Amino acid sequence: MHSRLWSFVGGDVGGFTVHRVSPITGETLPVTPRLAVTNGNSSAPPGGFVLHGVTSNERYVTHPERRALVARQEPLGREHARLGALIPIKKSEAWWALPQDERRAIFEDRSRHIALGLEALPAVARRLHHCRDLGTAEPFDFLTWFDYHPDDERRFDDLLGALRATPEWEFVEREVEIRVERASA
Amino acid sequence: MHSRLWSFVGGDVGGFTVHRVSPITGETLPVTPRLAVTNGNSSAPPGGFVLHGVTSNERYVTHPERRALVARQEPLGREHARLGALIPIKKSEAWWALPQDERRAIFEDRSRHIALGLEALPAVARRLHHCRDLGTAEPFDFLTWFDYHPDDERRFDDLLGALRATPEWEFVEREVEIRVERASA
Repeated sequence: MHSRLWSFVGGDVGGFTVHRVSPITGETLPVTPRLAVTNGNSSAPPGGFVLHGVTSNERYVTHPERRALVARQEPLGREHARLGALIPIKKSEAWWALPQDERRAIFEDRSRHIALGLEALPAVARRLHHCRDLGTAEPFDFLTWFDYHPDDERRFDDLLGALRATPEWEFVEREVEIRVERASA
Repeated sequence: MHSRLWSFVGGDVGGFTVHRVSPITGETLPVTPRLAVTNGNSSAPPGGFVLHGVTSNERYVTHPERRALVARQEPLGREHARLGALIPIKKSEAWWALPQDERRAIFEDRSRHIALGLEALPAVARRLHHCRDLGTAEPFDFLTWFDYHPDDERRFDDLLGALRATPEWEFVEREVEIRVERASA
């Protein structure tokens, strides 16, 4: 059975070679040679780390936005998309204390989060995982997992740069960027 | 430390005497003499059950609605509020597949979920717990825990009746109603 729970395991084994671990805001994560992306629950290897998250319903996307996304997005794991990134993020208590309409206003009306993501489609594929309501002590609120062709790396860099310049990102209190490449079989 | 995770344990011990377990939609839960409401993680006693949920950020409430709620609501555990109810609910996959704006439209514009709840304030106090993103196999999506004075039982019954008649409730595929009374010390 395919679970909505995913584990991202930093260690000595896994399908992705880690190129770089960059602390963007706050405390970083251990640098490990490999990253494993596994469906279901996993635990941390010695000296490594594990991050858990669940795929879930959309929190902000409206019907027209959903339609635009679905029309352009492609699935993860395309043969040519051998570069990837895992970006764990934690937002502040001030963010979570906002009512839904104010979070939506910051997220899209002021920060164009969905619109910026759309501009990177279909080059960049992504899957969002939620950690905040797992009921366990997870260090982040979200894990986003991306993949893309090496020719689209610049486009991906631009997307990250644009998002980090938004009002929404003023609420990000911890962010780490883990760049990977699919390991040869 | 106070966790956002709560456990509702049906068994032979606990602070509440169970008066009635009513299956509203779908499969019911075991009838137990007592219900324990505990902060953090707990497991099921033999013959009983445990339901887990986390308090979390608001999913639909807007700033003006939040203000109206905060102005009228009272905390759980008031001395006189010796009757209570635990109502676990599971919604359909069709509900969770809807984009945010369509869920909000059904929830409030068409079903007046917040407005109906407001009418029962301050008599009925409540706390909502989310189960769907716990990452474990929880049988419900939400657990709502209520308490009220015996004189307000009719008002609470009316609230449940009004909510169950809404378009939102067409998406409820499992619901159980557990009525309790605070046990004497």
